[in-house]
Amino acid sequence: MIKVGIIGATGYAGAEIVRLLMGHKDAEIVWYGSRSFIDQKYSDIYGNMFKLVDAKCMDDNMDELSKAVDVIFTATPQGLCASLVNEEVLSKVKIIDLSADFRLKDVKVYEQWYKIEHKAPQYIEEAVYGLCEINRDKIKNTRILANPGCYTTTSILTAYPLVKEGLIDPNTLIVDALSGVSGAGRGAKVANLYCEVNESAKPYGVATHRHTPEIEEQLGYAAGQEIKINFTPHLAPMNRGILATEYATLVKKDGKLPTYEEVRAAYEKYYAKEKFIRLLDKDVYPETRWVENSNFVDIGFKIDERTGRIIMMGALDNLVKGAAGQAVQNMNIMFGLPEEEGLLFAPCFP
Amino acid sequence: MIKVGIIGATGYAGAEIVRLLMGHKDAEIVWYGSRSFIDQKYSDIYGNMFKLVDAKCMDDNMDELSKAVDVIFTATPQGLCASLVNEEVLSKVKIIDLSADFRLKDVKVYEQWYKIEHKAPQYIEEAVYGLCEINRDKIKNTRILANPGCYTTTSILTAYPLVKEGLIDPNTLIVDALSGVSGAGRGAKVANLYCEVNESAKPYGVATHRHTPEIEEQLGYAAGQEIKINFTPHLAPMNRGILATEYATLVKKDGKLPTYEEVRAAYEKYYAKEKFIRLLDKDVYPETRWVENSNFVDIGFKIDERTGRIIMMGALDNLVKGAAGQAVQNMNIMFGLPEEEGLLFAPCFP
Amino acid sequence: MIKVGIIGATGYAGAEIVRLLMGHKDAEIVWYGSRSFIDQKYSDIYGNMFKLVDAKCMDDNMDELSKAVDVIFTATPQGLCASLVNEEVLSKVKIIDLSADFRLKDVKVYEQWYKIEHKAPQYIEEAVYGLCEINRDKIKNTRILANPGCYTTTSILTAYPLVKEGLIDPNTLIVDALSGVSGAGRGAKVANLYCEVNESAKPYGVATHRHTPEIEEQLGYAAGQEIKINFTPHLAPMNRGILATEYATLVKKDGKLPTYEEVRAAYEKYYAKEKFIRLLDKDVYPETRWVENSNFVDIGFKIDERTGRIIMMGALDNLVKGAAGQAVQNMNIMFGLPEEEGLLFAPCFP
Amino acid sequence: MIKVGIIGATGYAGAEIVRLLMGHKDAEIVWYGSRSFIDQKYSDIYGNMFKLVDAKCMDDNMDELSKAVDVIFTATPQGLCASLVNEEVLSKVKIIDLSADFRLKDVKVYEQWYKIEHKAPQYIEEAVYGLCEINRDKIKNTRILANPGCYTTTSILTAYPLVKEGLIDPNTLIVDALSGVSGAGRGAKVANLYCEVNESAKPYGVATHRHTPEIEEQLGYAAGQEIKINFTPHLAPMNRGILATEYATLVKKDGKLPTYEEVRAAYEKYYAKEKFIRLLDKDVYPETRWVENSNFVDIGFKIDERTGRIIMMGALDNLVKGAAGQAVQNMNIMFGLPEEEGLLFAPCFP
Repeated sequence: MIKVGIIGATGYAGAEIVRLLMGHKDAEIVWYGSRSFIDQKYSDIYGNMFKLVDAKCMDDNMDELSKAVDVIFTATPQGLCASLVNEEVLSKVKIIDLSADFRLKDVKVYEQWYKIEHKAPQYIEEAVYGLCEINRDKIKNTRILANPGCYTTTSILTAYPLVKEGLIDPNTLIVDALSGVSGAGRGAKVANLYCEVNESAKPYGVATHRHTPEIEEQLGYAAGQEIKINFTPHLAPMNRGILATEYATLVKKDGKLPTYEEVRAAYEKYYAKEKFIRLLDKDVYPETRWVENSNFVDIGFKIDERTGRIIMMGALDNLVKGAAGQAVQNMNIMFGLPEEEGLLFAPCFP
Repeated sequence: MIKVGIIGATGYAGAEIVRLLMGHKDAEIVWYGSRSFIDQKYSDIYGNMFKLVDAKCMDDNMDELSKAVDVIFTATPQGLCASLVNEEVLSKVKIIDLSADFRLKDVKVYEQWYKIEHKAPQYIEEAVYGLCEINRDKIKNTRILANPGCYTTTSILTAYPLVKEGLIDPNTLIVDALSGVSGAGRGAKVANLYCEVNESAKPYGVATHRHTPEIEEQLGYAAGQEIKINFTPHLAPMNRGILATEYATLVKKDGKLPTYEEVRAAYEKYYAKEKFIRLLDKDVYPETRWVENSNFVDIGFKIDERTGRIIMMGALDNLVKGAAGQAVQNMNIMFGLPEEEGLLFAPCFP
Repeated sequence: MIKVGIIGATGYAGAEIVRLLMGHKDAEIVWYGSRSFIDQKYSDIYGNMFKLVDAKCMDDNMDELSKAVDVIFTATPQGLCASLVNEEVLSKVKIIDLSADFRLKDVKVYEQWYKIEHKAPQYIEEAVYGLCEINRDKIKNTRILANPGCYTTTSILTAYPLVKEGLIDPNTLIVDALSGVSGAGRGAKVANLYCEVNESAKPYGVATHRHTPEIEEQLGYAAGQEIKINFTPHLAPMNRGILATEYATLVKKDGKLPTYEEVRAAYEKYYAKEKFIRLLDKDVYPETRWVENSNFVDIGFKIDERTGRIIMMGALDNLVKGAAGQAVQNMNIMFGLPEEEGLLFAPCFP
Repeated sequence: MIKVGIIGATGYAGAEIVRLLMGHKDAEIVWYGSRSFIDQKYSDIYGNMFKLVDAKCMDDNMDELSKAVDVIFTATPQGLCASLVNEEVLSKVKIIDLSADFRLKDVKVYEQWYKIEHKAPQYIEEAVYGLCEINRDKIKNTRILANPGCYTTTSILTAYPLVKEGLIDPNTLIVDALSGVSGAGRGAKVANLYCEVNESAKPYGVATHRHTPEIEEQLGYAAGQEIKINFTPHLAPMNRGILATEYATLVKKDGKLPTYEEVRAAYEKYYAKEKFIRLLDKDVYPETRWVENSNFVDIGFKIDERTGRIIMMGALDNLVKGAAGQAVQNMNIMFGLPEEEGLLFAPCFP
C-alpha cells in the first residue's frame, strides 16, 4: 500500500486527489496538508467527505511529511513546491507537483511568465513532464514529476500527432480554449463569485497566459523546432471541463491537402492503444459533458478544404485528466502499478 | 455474475443504472432496451459511453428478455411494467420497477392519482416497496420490487424515525421539496428546454403531485394510522439533487417539547448503522452538492422552540439514491450480495 | 429633477438603483458612494455602465452628501445607516434605507436578531416601513423610509390579504422560500463562489433568519395580534429571484373551508388595482423567470381540501421589487411622482 | 404611431421584439403572429407578459397583415419570408426579415449553404443587409431589410475596421465564437434540454455553419476582394450572449507591425460616434455579462508581437443587438425616427 501525502488538500485539485484515491486499491492518504485549515476536520471543509474521511488537516512541513509517506502530491500555487523540495526530501519520497514549478525546462522562461524567482532550479533538469501518453517511459523512473496544466494537457494532446507527423505547420497553430470555473481555484475572489461568472463568458490572459510557453515547449519537441503559437483561454459558466478548439494550416504534399484518412491514421498511430484517449468518429466533436468526472480526453477534427486549415478539438475534465486524474495516472506509472488503477470510471452524465 | 436487462436504458434513470453497473463486480448488462432507439449504438445516444459500451439498443420484449437475464430493471413511464409482467416472466426473473406501478397497495389510489388503469393488480400485493433502509427484510425474497420515487425516498427517510417514535404529529407534516431537472426525464418538451428552466424556480403539481399518496402510505405505516400531508415539489435550475424541507409540530410530553438529544436519539436508533444515511452534526443542514453523484442521503434538523415545530431536512441525488442507486442497492439485497457493492463511491464535488 | 445620492453604490442592490434611475425621468444620481472604491471610475467596477456612467466613486460622508442631494439611498450592511443619520441630515434630505436598521419597531427585537447595538433608536418610531402597497399613505410624508427585505416583501404580500381578512390562522403560517444568489451580496466569500453554489441547493438560517421578525411584525399588524411563524430560506443556483411557498390552515366558517372564489375575492380586494401585483389565474403558479428584471410580484394559490390548508405562492425579482425597484417606488411616493415612474418595464425572458 | 405586425412572435427573437417595442414611443404591435398558437392568449405562452399584453396569437397571413400594418417583422425559420413576400405586400409595408432569406446576394450560395430553394430571388438585389453601423444610408430607403444573424453581427463588427483599413490579412481570419442557448430557438429538441446543455460546452457546425458565407460576403466588401475565413461556433451554458474571439495576421508596413495606437485609430475612425458600439479601454476585453439585455456591442483587442497576430474580441446580446434590438434599430432608421429610440436601456447585471 502506497502511503500518500497531499500538500494543498483543500483546493479543488487537492480535493479531487482525495476523492480519486478513495477508489484506488493500492494507495492510502495519510497526510491531508492544508495550511489554511490546520487541525480542522477535513470533512468540515468538504461536506461530501462527511463520514468518509475522518482526518484533520495538517501543515505543509515537507521534511516531516517525507518521513511518513512514499509520495507527495503538491497541489499548491506556483513557487511553493520549488521552495520546499530538497535532496533530503527527494531521497525519501517521490514528488508529483501539480503546480508549474518544474514544467518548463528554461528557468528564464519560467521566471518571465510567472514573475517569480525559481527556488530550486537545480531540479528542473531531472524533473519529467508528466503527460503520460507522451512521456510514459521517462515518468517511470523520475523522482520529480511535473504534472501538466489542464489547458496544456488538452491543447497538446489534441495537436500532438499532427505536429509530430508534420501534417500541420506548427507556427500557424491557434488554440482557442474555454474552461469551467473550478480551474480558477477556491480562493475568495469577487471575480469568481457565482453572480459574476454565471450567465457570462469572457476571454482572459489574452496573449499572456502562462500555459502558452508550456504548450510551445512540448509541441516544439514534437516539431523538432522552436515554435510560437496563439493561445486564448475563456471562462465559461460551468463547474468542470476544458474544451480546446485548435486551428492550423495543413501541409500540402504534391500540392494536395492530407485526406481525412491520412490525418486519422496519424492520430491512431499515437493514440489507438491509449485507454484514456478517445478518438471520436468522423464528424463527431468533443463535448465536455461526455468526459465529465472521468479521466478521458475526447478528440475530433475537421478538415476545411476551403481554407486549407484543419480544426482539431479536444475535451477533458480539468480536475481529473487536467489535474488530479493525471496525477494519479502518473503515480501509477511511477510505482509500477497498472496505469488505469483507480481511474476506470465512466463519465457521469447528466 | 448476475445478468441484467434494462427496459428504458436511454432515459436518465436507465442510463444511470448502466453507469453504476459498470462499477459493479457481480453484474453485467446484456440487454439495453430502448424502444425509441432500437438497433442504434447505445454510445451514439450517450456519448459518455463511447468506447465503454459497445452494445446496440434492443426492444422491450419482456418475454424474450426474461429468458436471457436474471433481473430486469424497468425504467419506463407508469403503466408499462404492469402491462408487460406476467407469471411466465416472473417465474424466470426478478423485476425491479422504477415506475410507480407497484408502489401503492391500493389500486384505487393508484388509478385516481395516475389516471390510468392498472394492468396487473394481481401482483400489487406481493410487490415490495424497496426503501432499503426500512424494508430490507422483505426485499430479500420478493420477485417484484417497487423502487421508490426520488421525492418519496427523501421525504420518507427524513421524517420516518420521528413519525415511528411518535415525536411529531404526522398530520401536521408539510413537505416542501425541490428537484434538479433530470427528474423531469429526457423527453423533448418545451418546458424542459435550457432557457425555460435556467435562471428560474417554480412550484408544480401543487396539492396534486403523485408522490403524495406514496409518502402518506409509507409514513402511515410508521404512524400506525392513515395520515394526510402536504407535499409541494419545485423545480430548480440544476441537473441533479433533491432537497426536502419538512415541517411538523412536535408532540409534547408532560408539556415539554422533545429536546435535541431526544430527537437525535430517534434518528440514531434507525440510522446509526446505515451506510448510506448520514445524520449531520448539530446545526449542519443538507446541501445537494455534498451528495451529488452518490448513494448517500444527508439528514439534518432544527427544533424551533418559538413555534413548537421541527424542521427536518434531507438531500440526495435523484438519479442515484433517488432512482438507479437505490435500484442497484435493492438488486444487491435481492441477490444476497453485499448491499453496498458498486455503490461505495464518494460524492463528486464540485 | 430630484438629486440622488447612493451610499453603497457598488453592491448589487446599489448598482440596481443606478441602473433603474438611468431610466427615470425625474431623478439623477449625483453621488455614487462606495467606501471600498473611492476615486475609482464606477464603470471600472460595473462594466455594463461603461460609457453610460462617467462618475467616480465617492465616500460615505452623509453630512456632506446631505447638502448635495434631495434623497439618500443607503444600500449598506446593517448598522451603517443608523450610525450616520442625525437631525442635521434629516433636516435636509429624505433617507431611503435598504438595510434593516429601521424596519423593526422594537429595538430589542432588532438587537436580538441582528446582534448589534442600534445607534439611532430615536428615529425608529417615525420611520415608515416601505411596503408600498400596504403603507402607501404613511410613506408619502416620512423622512426615513425603511425599505423592506426581499424575502419579507414576497412573504408578506403573498399572505397579507388572507391574514387581514381572517381566512387563515396566522400562527400556522409556514414560509418556505428560495432565493437567487445576488441576495447574498458581492462580498468575496468562499461560500458564494461559483463552484460552491452552482448545481446545489441548500437551506440556511433555519429558524434563525433575520427576516422572520420582520414578517411576524407586519403580518401581526394585519392579524391584529402577535404571531409566530416559521420561515426557512434556501439558496438556489440562479442570479435573481425569490420564490415563497407559504402554508397555512384555512379558517372554517360554519364547518366549511373558504372556497376558491372567497379566497380570490380577498386577494382582489387588496390587489386588484395594484400595478405591480399580478394575481395569477386559477391553477397558475408563480415562476421567477416571469418576473425577472421587473418590479412585479406574481401571486397564486391552491386550496388543499384534503388537509384543510392553503398553499400561497409569490415570486419577485429580489434586486428590483425586493430591493432597488421598491426603493425607487418609495421615492416616487415620497416625492409625489407617479408611483410607477421608471419602473414600467416588462420582465425580461429568457 | 407605426403599426407593427410580427410573424413568429412566440419564438425567442419574436418575443424580444414584443418586449422591446413595449418601451418604444412610436410603435405599437397590432398583430402577434404565431402559427403554432393561433387564438391562444400571448401571455399564456410568455408569462412575463401577463397583464401587459392582452392580445391573442394570429396566423401568418401576410396579405391580410400587410393591410393592417406599416412594417412586418418576420422572425421565422429560413424560407418562410421568401415564400410569403410579393409585390402586393411590398407596395403596402416594409419588411424586416430576421431570417437569412435576403442576407446573401448570391442565390446559389444561399441554396448551397441552406439546402433549400429560394422562393423570391427577384427581391434579393434590392434587399439591404441591415448592419446599421455599416449600411445606415442604404437602410433608410429599402423596402426589404435583411436583419443580420447574431454571430455575424458580432463577427463582422469586431473585424470590420481592420479589414477596411487593410491592417489585417482577411484570408487569415479565424472567428472562434460561442453563444448562449437562446440562439438555438424554442423548438422542443432533446439537444436543447436543460440537462443536455447545462454544465457542458461544445463546438458545432464546424466548417459548415451557415453564418460563414454571410461573414465572408460582408467582410469581402470591406476588403474589396473575395475572402475565405474559418468560423467555429460553440454552445455555452447560458441564456444569452455571443462572444467572438477573432485571429488574424497583421499586415506589416516597412517590416513593422501596426502599433496599438494605429489599430485603435482604425476602430475609432468607424465607431467613435456610434451609440451602440463601445470600444473598450486597452487590455480590457468584452464579457457577455456587460452587454446582457442591451443593444451594445463591446469590442477589445490585443496585439501579439510574438506571433504577429492580433486577437480581436466582440460581445453582444444575441437576442438584442444580435436579433430584435438590431431589427428595431433598423425600423427606426427606415422610418426616420431617432436611431436609438426604444433601445437606450443599460445592460442588466447580474
